[in-house]
Amino acid sequence: MRFFSDNAAAACPEAVAAIAAANRLDTAYDGDSWSARLDDAFSDLFETKVTSLWVSTGTAANALALAALCPPYGSIVCHRDAHIQNDECGAPEFYTNGAKLLLGEGEGAKLTPGAVTALLDTVRDDVHQTQPAALSITNATEYGLVYTAEETAALGELARERGLGFHVDGARFANAVVSTGDSPAALTWRAGVDALSFGFVKNGGISAEALIFFGEEHRQATLYRRKRAGHLLSKGRYLAAQLLAMIEDGVWLRNAGSANDSAARLAEAAGPERLLLPVEANEIFLKVRPDEARKLRDLGFDFYDWGPGEARLVTAWDSDPAHVDALAAAIRAL
Amino acid sequence: MRFFSDNAAAACPEAVAAIAAANRLDTAYDGDSWSARLDDAFSDLFETKVTSLWVSTGTAANALALAALCPPYGSIVCHRDAHIQNDECGAPEFYTNGAKLLLGEGEGAKLTPGAVTALLDTVRDDVHQTQPAALSITNATEYGLVYTAEETAALGELARERGLGFHVDGARFANAVVSTGDSPAALTWRAGVDALSFGFVKNGGISAEALIFFGEEHRQATLYRRKRAGHLLSKGRYLAAQLLAMIEDGVWLRNAGSANDSAARLAEAAGPERLLLPVEANEIFLKVRPDEARKLRDLGFDFYDWGPGEARLVTAWDSDPAHVDALAAAIRAL
Amino acid sequence: MRFFSDNAAAACPEAVAAIAAANRLDTAYDGDSWSARLDDAFSDLFETKVTSLWVSTGTAANALALAALCPPYGSIVCHRDAHIQNDECGAPEFYTNGAKLLLGEGEGAKLTPGAVTALLDTVRDDVHQTQPAALSITNATEYGLVYTAEETAALGELARERGLGFHVDGARFANAVVSTGDSPAALTWRAGVDALSFGFVKNGGISAEALIFFGEEHRQATLYRRKRAGHLLSKGRYLAAQLLAMIEDGVWLRNAGSANDSAARLAEAAGPERLLLPVEANEIFLKVRPDEARKLRDLGFDFYDWGPGEARLVTAWDSDPAHVDALAAAIRAL
Amino acid sequence: MRFFSDNAAAACPEAVAAIAAANRLDTAYDGDSWSARLDDAFSDLFETKVTSLWVSTGTAANALALAALCPPYGSIVCHRDAHIQNDECGAPEFYTNGAKLLLGEGEGAKLTPGAVTALLDTVRDDVHQTQPAALSITNATEYGLVYTAEETAALGELARERGLGFHVDGARFANAVVSTGDSPAALTWRAGVDALSFGFVKNGGISAEALIFFGEEHRQATLYRRKRAGHLLSKGRYLAAQLLAMIEDGVWLRNAGSANDSAARLAEAAGPERLLLPVEANEIFLKVRPDEARKLRDLGFDFYDWGPGEARLVTAWDSDPAHVDALAAAIRAL
Repeated sequence: MRFFSDNAAAACPEAVAAIAAANRLDTAYDGDSWSARLDDAFSDLFETKVTSLWVSTGTAANALALAALCPPYGSIVCHRDAHIQNDECGAPEFYTNGAKLLLGEGEGAKLTPGAVTALLDTVRDDVHQTQPAALSITNATEYGLVYTAEETAALGELARERGLGFHVDGARFANAVVSTGDSPAALTWRAGVDALSFGFVKNGGISAEALIFFGEEHRQATLYRRKRAGHLLSKGRYLAAQLLAMIEDGVWLRNAGSANDSAARLAEAAGPERLLLPVEANEIFLKVRPDEARKLRDLGFDFYDWGPGEARLVTAWDSDPAHVDALAAAIRAL
Repeated sequence: MRFFSDNAAAACPEAVAAIAAANRLDTAYDGDSWSARLDDAFSDLFETKVTSLWVSTGTAANALALAALCPPYGSIVCHRDAHIQNDECGAPEFYTNGAKLLLGEGEGAKLTPGAVTALLDTVRDDVHQTQPAALSITNATEYGLVYTAEETAALGELARERGLGFHVDGARFANAVVSTGDSPAALTWRAGVDALSFGFVKNGGISAEALIFFGEEHRQATLYRRKRAGHLLSKGRYLAAQLLAMIEDGVWLRNAGSANDSAARLAEAAGPERLLLPVEANEIFLKVRPDEARKLRDLGFDFYDWGPGEARLVTAWDSDPAHVDALAAAIRAL
Repeated sequence: MRFFSDNAAAACPEAVAAIAAANRLDTAYDGDSWSARLDDAFSDLFETKVTSLWVSTGTAANALALAALCPPYGSIVCHRDAHIQNDECGAPEFYTNGAKLLLGEGEGAKLTPGAVTALLDTVRDDVHQTQPAALSITNATEYGLVYTAEETAALGELARERGLGFHVDGARFANAVVSTGDSPAALTWRAGVDALSFGFVKNGGISAEALIFFGEEHRQATLYRRKRAGHLLSKGRYLAAQLLAMIEDGVWLRNAGSANDSAARLAEAAGPERLLLPVEANEIFLKVRPDEARKLRDLGFDFYDWGPGEARLVTAWDSDPAHVDALAAAIRAL
Repeated sequence: MRFFSDNAAAACPEAVAAIAAANRLDTAYDGDSWSARLDDAFSDLFETKVTSLWVSTGTAANALALAALCPPYGSIVCHRDAHIQNDECGAPEFYTNGAKLLLGEGEGAKLTPGAVTALLDTVRDDVHQTQPAALSITNATEYGLVYTAEETAALGELARERGLGFHVDGARFANAVVSTGDSPAALTWRAGVDALSFGFVKNGGISAEALIFFGEEHRQATLYRRKRAGHLLSKGRYLAAQLLAMIEDGVWLRNAGSANDSAARLAEAAGPERLLLPVEANEIFLKVRPDEARKLRDLGFDFYDWGPGEARLVTAWDSDPAHVDALAAAIRAL
């Protein structure tokens, strides 16, 4: 009974079926009929004209977005616990050709305008320092918190004032949409977001993520960057088909809803005393003594130790309700 | 009836089935049970211990290989018509951090020891010029010729003498193996090859290519490079499973054999007068007048114009025998 | 009696005196009073408002200019024999983060609109190829030819039509100005040039070159790029002072005139039969048999062998008239 | 009376004289007779065989050193207040092609083995994080503290244990040598240091810094890197001559001694209450109220405000004793 990562989950049937359905001769790269529908499909979803590109990983989406928003001699404001800082082996630095990440503070990997301002104010406006060019947040955060549309808009306004491009790492964007009840538009361009890494793999996809730019400005350069990074698959239709299958019938929302619900049930079982952070998406951070952790593992539950006396549990679109119930009961019984 | 690219072909049933078969929860990234079997499976195939990494594209495989073999201040000898020079939008330059490609001559995109030596001899051994660090050939070439084991070994010996790493872009390596009758080992490490981009997508895969290093030397660095390039998929098992499905039962050889056979039938129909180059793999380059090209298109055949009075036809693992017969007849009838 | 490189010459007295004159406490980096005068001094010289930056080498000037004009996924058209291709160990690739150089043909390292057009026409307009973004010529060329204002303007018009930034490597710009009799303005911005590497070191400077942009567009980014490349000297006044000393009293023209005159005398001595190329600046390429070369060396003349039966002689601002006379006589006597 | 930066000081007479003395024709780049003596001269100074390269700036020296010690997918441990982090506009990231800086804590910009260990222990040993490859300290630090030979050796031992290359940014290395009384050897290779950026410009040079590697390992690659970074001056003799003039007669020690003495006098005048940090080299950090700072400025003293209620004063090799006395008196009188 695995609760250690939504990355480890299976793919949802709609994604698998899409592979089979796309399995016929078509034009190569992104010239196929599935890829041709992407911009319209995502434009509908976001209620505005977007530029959309499929890529194979969230790291590629993030790094391409940041390379579009930040020059080599710029810097990117993000949280100290951001995935782009801690889990991408320097992909942002590689793709931007050496921009710096400026690391901000905030509980649950969440930035506030105050935290961003404090960080920006440490930078001297001279040629000896890389100048902030982009702000990147993760929604839902690496610690399972969400930014509401309003919170995002406050950061977006700050970004605009300070001349920063605004990127959202949405590896779990679906979970944030479901959790906040805010629309995709409200959580992005209406809040001043320029680029979104829209995650599908953690949410039931096989190998397709979407990089969304709100507007046309970064389209051309990013098409070239994607190619030279080796992310233009020759049979791109299998990626496009996955994305279409997951957004066109609301699969992405259903999947994320299921994961969030499972997490909520575990959170309820844990209770406020045991929770390190509120559970707003599909990650649960628990206080557990070593003997408690052992007990859970003895019962067959897999999860990560997160720190001394801490555990991370992650639910997924396909978390087995029986497993969730069993885990909830086990947590209650600790 | 499309003969314009093997990239446009469908995926073979074994690859599609592999996706479904791998569709269960497992460890993320390359920690899964399919990825764990890769090194052994490829080591068997190559009759030596290899390091193997899945990636999504041949461009990524090539660029990672070259980054392993060539420092930023080095240069890479390749043919003027090489894919790494003409079709990867500078991926080798991006991944190596700015190495130069030195462009050699030779019919049918094929390098000889003489051509390589001539090129190397143009380089001054001083700090003002990037020094040759790698040799890269494509087998089968971009023009459908193959290097035999013996020809490869002659280049490998030269590479060793001149201190060059030796890379083979094997986007159509399967076609070369079938065409030459030489073993994978004979065409690679026994001939002095250090790294192979082993192509599966043109040969019936969906989205998985293999980067093979002969030995352990470049493993660790390349794992980091793959990650920071955004090519470590979180559900890597779907790539590993495709590769295993295609090599473990000889599917890769059967597919390539079928493509080569189709090409041979078209070559025979064309006859030596009409062929621009010998047909040794699955590409056919024809002399065709504009009116002849139009006639073929009017009959429903798709292909690329390659130059004035030239056409490129590519067969694939799934070229329909009836279409091949029809095209052969049409060529004969020109 | 050395005629092998103007790089080997001494520095002119005005440059040396400038070091001493600048040797007092002032603001660091480019905040000093000499650096503050640069833009005005060069704007006067070029009869338009320019952005000027001192750097220590022509390679830095070239690479910074190209990084301003060409994105990482672009390419730079230049001559096959250009310094940026052959003598900078990949500096353009390093600074641009991996742009490609497209190598054109033409006698004496000189490009024509026809040669550039031919090269541009080989590039497919698709995402698989880096797209031409800049044109770079060297004036005077690596083979001592010059581009007149008219010739430059023809290339400038082509550059504009094709959307290319236009860079001039002017390591020997002074020699070209003197040789053509065209004004600095006519040879640059009036001819469509965006950026000039204005060489002083070969012309009698110690360690200062100027990077000139015509207009403000690239100023800010290039200031950052210069710093992060380690080219913002903390005592920049010693560079600025050299440049000012050499342009404010016409020293740069006098020095180049002297070098050109010396070369002209050698060319006259050689006669058309023996010259491989016309002598238009301060380089002379001669046909000399090995025994003739040996004879010249026995007489105490230093120069480079350039190819079988070829020699390169370079005059400098300080070529000793007696040495020039002696060499002229020796060439006549061959 | 300027006390705001040793970068703003004049050059010492020996350095200026060296320019004039080197002002004759010689071989270009680093083929001249001054450059040829560098390795021996520095090897004598360090009592071991070293590789030495002149460069124009400390930023270039630092970035080249780090590129030698750290791969693109590695990280560099340094202090949060290190020059390489705060004052080089991302030069380390540019030269290493995107390595990360890991920022440690410690008073006065000084790292301890404990601080470094704490930082290293935050890094997971997996492919998702850049792995520490180098340790860089600044001696004297950006806050004017020094590392003794013993302190350096403790860090060197840690570096060796953890497989890290060890770099010292010695922009003010001379001040550290004088202050500690330890030998250049004891402060570097005997303490496990692999590379030293040996500063001369702050200490009375014009435009020459030395990059020292202890051993041969990084020589070849760094020669290429220097060239492609545009740091191989064509008349390198003017740099080599400065360095030789400053080390061959102990000028560097005399200059640094003078600067340190001036600082010590100011520190004594200030007294422990007013000093933010001990004064161990040539920088003094004072607690001063705004009205006190104004009073000093009204008396004609220039210096930087460093933070609220803080001021930085820097002495130089040429600080006028009368100015130092005046400032000491003024501080006493506050």
